Amino acid sequence: SLSLTCRQSDYFDQQQRFTTSTPPNNNSSFSSQPPNRAGQFPPRYFVGHSIYKGKAALTVEPRAPDFIALDSGAFKLVKEGFVLLQFAPAAGVRLYDWSRKQDRNTGTTFSFLLGQMMEVIIDTFYDDLQPKLKLLEVFSLSVTEIGSLVSLGARDSCEFFHDPFKGKRCCLLYFCVQNKLINLDESIYIPVTKAEFAVLNSAFNFILPYLLGWHAFANSIKPEDTSRGNNASSRHGGDVEWNR
Amino acid sequence: SLSLTCRQSDYFDQQQRFTTSTPPNNNSSFSSQPPNRAGQFPPRYFVGHSIYKGKAALTVEPRAPDFIALDSGAFKLVKEGFVLLQFAPAAGVRLYDWSRKQDRNTGTTFSFLLGQMMEVIIDTFYDDLQPKLKLLEVFSLSVTEIGSLVSLGARDSCEFFHDPFKGKRCCLLYFCVQNKLINLDESIYIPVTKAEFAVLNSAFNFILPYLLGWHAFANSIKPEDTSRGNNASSRHGGDVEWNR
Amino acid sequence: SLSLTCRQSDYFDQQQRFTTSTPPNNNSSFSSQPPNRAGQFPPRYFVGHSIYKGKAALTVEPRAPDFIALDSGAFKLVKEGFVLLQFAPAAGVRLYDWSRKQDRNTGTTFSFLLGQMMEVIIDTFYDDLQPKLKLLEVFSLSVTEIGSLVSLGARDSCEFFHDPFKGKRCCLLYFCVQNKLINLDESIYIPVTKAEFAVLNSAFNFILPYLLGWHAFANSIKPEDTSRGNNASSRHGGDVEWNR
Amino acid sequence: SLSLTCRQSDYFDQQQRFTTSTPPNNNSSFSSQPPNRAGQFPPRYFVGHSIYKGKAALTVEPRAPDFIALDSGAFKLVKEGFVLLQFAPAAGVRLYDWSRKQDRNTGTTFSFLLGQMMEVIIDTFYDDLQPKLKLLEVFSLSVTEIGSLVSLGARDSCEFFHDPFKGKRCCLLYFCVQNKLINLDESIYIPVTKAEFAVLNSAFNFILPYLLGWHAFANSIKPEDTSRGNNASSRHGGDVEWNR
Repeated sequence: SLSLTCRQSDYFDQQQRFTTSTPPNNNSSFSSQPPNRAGQFPPRYFVGHSIYKGKAALTVEPRAPDFIALDSGAFKLVKEGFVLLQFAPAAGVRLYDWSRKQDRNTGTTFSFLLGQMMEVIIDTFYDDLQPKLKLLEVFSLSVTEIGSLVSLGARDSCEFFHDPFKGKRCCLLYFCVQNKLINLDESIYIPVTKAEFAVLNSAFNFILPYLLGWHAFANSIKPEDTSRGNNASSRHGGDVEWNR
Repeated sequence: SLSLTCRQSDYFDQQQRFTTSTPPNNNSSFSSQPPNRAGQFPPRYFVGHSIYKGKAALTVEPRAPDFIALDSGAFKLVKEGFVLLQFAPAAGVRLYDWSRKQDRNTGTTFSFLLGQMMEVIIDTFYDDLQPKLKLLEVFSLSVTEIGSLVSLGARDSCEFFHDPFKGKRCCLLYFCVQNKLINLDESIYIPVTKAEFAVLNSAFNFILPYLLGWHAFANSIKPEDTSRGNNASSRHGGDVEWNR
Repeated sequence: SLSLTCRQSDYFDQQQRFTTSTPPNNNSSFSSQPPNRAGQFPPRYFVGHSIYKGKAALTVEPRAPDFIALDSGAFKLVKEGFVLLQFAPAAGVRLYDWSRKQDRNTGTTFSFLLGQMMEVIIDTFYDDLQPKLKLLEVFSLSVTEIGSLVSLGARDSCEFFHDPFKGKRCCLLYFCVQNKLINLDESIYIPVTKAEFAVLNSAFNFILPYLLGWHAFANSIKPEDTSRGNNASSRHGGDVEWNR
Repeated sequence: SLSLTCRQSDYFDQQQRFTTSTPPNNNSSFSSQPPNRAGQFPPRYFVGHSIYKGKAALTVEPRAPDFIALDSGAFKLVKEGFVLLQFAPAAGVRLYDWSRKQDRNTGTTFSFLLGQMMEVIIDTFYDDLQPKLKLLEVFSLSVTEIGSLVSLGARDSCEFFHDPFKGKRCCLLYFCVQNKLINLDESIYIPVTKAEFAVLNSAFNFILPYLLGWHAFANSIKPEDTSRGNNASSRHGGDVEWNR
């Protein structure tokens, strides 16, 4: 069968406000956003899509790319967007504990197993040498990791290992551990059906060009403007020769 | 061959105004909407796409997701959109009875059979114990059920059973029955060609991100705003480490 | 090999202004549109995409769906859009005669052959019994015919026969004939490569939801409005039960 | 294995400002755009997406189509957009020399090899007879060449040869040469994974309709306008007969 494994997430501090045990969809989910005084910024949209199963639930939510303004008045993409995956163990019938934090401080693996049934398994390992940090299980998938997911064939698998300690400042999120010391063996297993994966696939394929910022370019193509020589003036001077 | 079976729909009261025998496209179709005093709400669009065949016709129409406004000024998705499937038996040559209601009050199955010819079959069963309700045959497909449809392979089939009595308030729509008592055996059979299914597939793939509300997120990515630090300020504090 | 054959087109009078022998892209192509006094209507866009080959050229261009305004202020789709295919025989090296009209008055077949090379062949037949009409070779593909094209597998073929005399008013366009009487055997043959077909496929997949009018619905989903109860009020009264 | 080979690029003079050795994403990349006095033109967006590997890096960036305004107030596509591919050799660990220019003046081939690992190889050849031009390695992929890429099957390959001297004014960009005379044999090799190619594929599929200008047509379909008879009036007079 197929598996996609992501060992560790690298996204933390937005979570302080996250206390309710209801699915993220019923509160501000991933972000503790300061009140947006009238029109100061455009409204933000929390559109987490969740898959609920017996042992756990998974929520996926997109995050926007970053741009910088250039002197010429143009805008340049400086960081591509990404998608947040958030896992919560079941805390009862149709009840999920999005707030429970686990004591562990190193690599966690979650894997999607495709084929008949696609499963998300959080396999984790615990290393006593590392300082303990209490964090929640959120993984941020980069554009290329999303590329792996959308190109998963029926017989494929892919694995992402997010090592918390490789980055300059370690901003890390992980869930729990196959702790050989205190013999704690918890892993989250979410059987995702082909239909549910098709929805994720459709959502990821839709959002990828936006995470790349290519929608900003596309929306800027206005015939009324380009036909006023705007586009032509800024195009490369030479005549582009197409007749090969 | 392949089949998709949906046993019962869960959408009712919008239909009181539905009386004409012409295809839904020629009147207000799925919704009895109060007149929209100038600009009170944005205009609504009825864009049912129909497939007409000898014995019956099928119309598919999308329904929008619901959002709530948060204190912070952001918006949060509270309920994903869905797609309405409506069936009407033929009432003559190129004439379909979208208004005929059937006496039945329990599970109805309709199935798409893929392969050479994709067929929609409404198999229904009648249970005398249940109170009789006169209703019309409309099924609402959830996002995941749409996921099943768009991921149907040439050899696949999927089935949705909408049991009218499992929900808190039973809002149910069903067509007619394999009534063992009064020996009424009516099922609607709509042969849908591969090309027609390709159109449904294209429409469903297009609409899925909108039903998930992800278009609202995508449209909110404005480089002019994000580059004013809006996006950066609300991003997770820690530095996201991509260089694995 | 695979073939898509369309016997006859059903689109005529827009063409009176069409006289130049240059590819449609260099003049107003498909439409003789009255000048649009400042802002009277939104601007129109002619975006024909052409494939030029030795013997002939093919241009494809989308046409918008039609809506009607309802009393309730809503809009309802009354006719789905379509895509125009226009063929012109070569009149010299890289010169195509988009204005040449042929004497014939019945079925014309053009076919895409997929496989190694996709070819468009215009096979036509001439029937002395029909009145002669001088027309140009434009075919309008319906949404479902586009569905056939986008779902063409490597081993598939599909054929559309547009019989000019089946419609109420015969608005017909055809090119030329395998005329058994005057022994005129002309057919246009356009070898379309897999890459060129991929571009058509991508363009058709993109435009289909717009021809169905589903973009109007999608663009109308504004969280700011829906969250003000607009969407909820007009939704079906009953509680939609998803937890099957 | 599969390969896509593009022999030479045809895009030059925009590059004079391109001097830093950091990836194009950190400066104005492909274009030396004059400062855009407040609102004179809509802002432009530089959204290059890069793939960084040991020996070299690849950046892809879309370029808009051109329109002309017609007397009737409509707009007509006169030149389809394209995608720029830019290659830079590695100049150290995670350091790429986007500014290094090579002495050569004829065909360069780069090829994507699909299969397990997709590789981009720049094979070049040098011809002493041609005048020497110092240029940088940027290739512009036409819409159809993009069609080749997005339709690449697991066992396919495609090759584009951009001959610099076939066009009227030679605007050419090439990298370096298999120079038999001075025995200089340099080729750039970029192993692109399946996931990275999936991201390119998704971005190209998204941008193709915009490069064709079909988004301008799609965005112009406003039910409010079409229902005021605008669309109907400008449609072809004859009744389009669909009932085949």
